[in-house]
Amino acid sequence: MSAAPIAVVGSVAFDTIETPFGRAEEVLGGSAMHFAVAASYFAPVRLVAVVGDDFPDAEREYLAGRGIDLSGLEVRPGRTFRWTGRYHEDMNVRDTLALHLNVFAEFRPVLSAEIRRSPIVFLANIDPRLQEAVLEQFDDPNVVACDTMDHWIATAREPLEALLPRVDLLVLNDDEARLLSGEQNVSRAARRILELGPRSVLVKRGEYGAILFSPDSVFAVPAYPLEEVFDPTGAGDTFAGGVVGYLSATGERSEAGLRRAIVYGTVLASYVVEDFGGQRLRTLTRDDIDRRYRQFVALTEF
Amino acid sequence: MSAAPIAVVGSVAFDTIETPFGRAEEVLGGSAMHFAVAASYFAPVRLVAVVGDDFPDAEREYLAGRGIDLSGLEVRPGRTFRWTGRYHEDMNVRDTLALHLNVFAEFRPVLSAEIRRSPIVFLANIDPRLQEAVLEQFDDPNVVACDTMDHWIATAREPLEALLPRVDLLVLNDDEARLLSGEQNVSRAARRILELGPRSVLVKRGEYGAILFSPDSVFAVPAYPLEEVFDPTGAGDTFAGGVVGYLSATGERSEAGLRRAIVYGTVLASYVVEDFGGQRLRTLTRDDIDRRYRQFVALTEF
Repeated sequence: MSAAPIAVVGSVAFDTIETPFGRAEEVLGGSAMHFAVAASYFAPVRLVAVVGDDFPDAEREYLAGRGIDLSGLEVRPGRTFRWTGRYHEDMNVRDTLALHLNVFAEFRPVLSAEIRRSPIVFLANIDPRLQEAVLEQFDDPNVVACDTMDHWIATAREPLEALLPRVDLLVLNDDEARLLSGEQNVSRAARRILELGPRSVLVKRGEYGAILFSPDSVFAVPAYPLEEVFDPTGAGDTFAGGVVGYLSATGERSEAGLRRAIVYGTVLASYVVEDFGGQRLRTLTRDDIDRRYRQFVALTEF
Repeated sequence: MSAAPIAVVGSVAFDTIETPFGRAEEVLGGSAMHFAVAASYFAPVRLVAVVGDDFPDAEREYLAGRGIDLSGLEVRPGRTFRWTGRYHEDMNVRDTLALHLNVFAEFRPVLSAEIRRSPIVFLANIDPRLQEAVLEQFDDPNVVACDTMDHWIATAREPLEALLPRVDLLVLNDDEARLLSGEQNVSRAARRILELGPRSVLVKRGEYGAILFSPDSVFAVPAYPLEEVFDPTGAGDTFAGGVVGYLSATGERSEAGLRRAIVYGTVLASYVVEDFGGQRLRTLTRDDIDRRYRQFVALTEF
C-alpha cells in the first residue's frame, strides 16, 4: 500500500544553538520542519508554516528534495522566526537566550483544498487555539497527532483541554505530562491525561526513552544509547515525525504497529542529536534508519 | 540444575523513612538485607553482615524463613545500624537525616570455610577496602558482582579502582558512573569504567530502567512503569539481588542469560518500591514475580 499524506502545522525557524560541544549559527529548525523531514522518510508530507522573505532558496530546495510539499509554506514580508538557546552540561536542561517570532507572530494558516483532505494531521507545538483553528479546516482526518509544551499548558489550558478529545495521539514530555495532570508520577499523569480525551498519550523522556499509554496497554521503550550527543534540539519533533511517518507508511493502527512506529521515531531521534539542528538528517538514508532499527532490536531483546 | 549459593557482604540496618506518601519507623533495611531477600527467590543465600544485640528474633526468623543462611550474621554488643532519610516530592532525590553506624563501624568479617567456598559473591555497597578484604577470603568464586556509591568514589577511589579488575559485574547508578568516569554521557562513562577492569557495567537509572554495558554489547531496558511508588529505599539492592539470584539459579553466563537476569531484577525492584522498606517482599511469591515478568515482556515487546 502507499503511504497516506501527512499534513504538519507548526513553525519553521532559524536556530542559534550553544551546547557544551560547540555552537551553530542560524541552522534550519522549527517544530514543523523537524517533524516534516523525519516523516518524509516514510510518507508524503505537506508542510503548513510561514517563513519570511529572507528564507533561502537552498533551504526550500532541501525540503522539496525530500518530497515535502511546500504549497502550504507561506512567505510573508519580514524575517523568519529566530530562536537562540544554550544547553547546560546536563543537556536535559536548556535556556532560551532570544526568541524573535517575526513573521510567525501573524501565522493564521488557511489550508488549500488539497491539504484539507490530508488523512493524517500533526499539530506541532503551537498555541492550542491555533491548533484548533487549523484542525477545524481538515475534512475528516483519520489520525490526529498533537504536541504541546509547558507554556501552553500554563497559559492556554482551557483551549488545550478542549482540543484533546479530538486527538488520537498526544505527544508530550514527562515534565509537561506532570504539569498538565498535576500528578508527579508519570504513569498516573498519563492516566489522568487519557481521561481528558486523547486516545493515546506518548510521553517523551529524552535520553531515557518513551512510554505509550493507551486505555488498555502500556509500552515502555528506552532511548538508543549514544556516546556522542551534540545537540538535542529538534529531537522531540523528529521522534514524532518518525512515529507518525511510519504509521502513515504502513496504514497500521494496531497497538503493534504503533509500537514499531515508536521505535522508528526513537531511531530518527537518535540520529538528529548527533549533529547540530537537523544537519544529520541532510545525509541520513533510509538504509541508515533500517540498520539502526535492527541494532535497536538487538540492544533491547531479552 | 540446582542454584549455586550466593554470599552477600554488606549492611543490615533499621531504616526510618519519610516519603511524600508517609513515614515508616525502623523497618528492616540495609544493602545486604535487601539483596539477600531478593536473591533468595532464586538461590540459596549466605548473609555476611553484623547486627547489634537489639536485633529481634522475629527478623532473624523472617530471613531464615526465606532460606537465607545466617551463620555469617555476626551479633555484637550494641545497637544495629540506623539510617533515617527523607525523599523529596521528586523521589529521585533524598536527604540523609541521620546515620548511626553503631556496631557496623566495627564490621571486619572473617568468613567461615563454607562461606569461602561460595561460587557467587555480591559485595554490597561498603568501603571498597572492606570489599577487597572480604573478596580475598573467598576460595575461587565464579562470579563477583559489586556495588558502590558516590561516597566511596570520592573518598576511596584508589582501593575501588584496585578492586574493579576482579569484578565481573559492577552495579552502580548513573550519577555514580559519571563521578567514577568523569564523563557526563552515560554510554561514554560506562565505556571508560569498562577500561578500569570490570567485565560488565550495569548502570541503574531508577525509574528510567537500566543499561548493561559489556565490551561487545549494550542492553537497554526500561523500568516497570508503576502508578504507585511509595518508597525507593532498597530498590537498587533488590534489583541486584534479582539479577544475581537469577544468574545463580540458571547457571547461565551468556549475554542472553544476563539480560533475562536484569529483567528479573527489574521485576523485583518494581515490587519493593510498592511499600516501605522491604515490606512488600514479605508477602511476595515466586508466582507474583513470574507473572510480572510476563507483563514486562508484554509491555516492552514490539
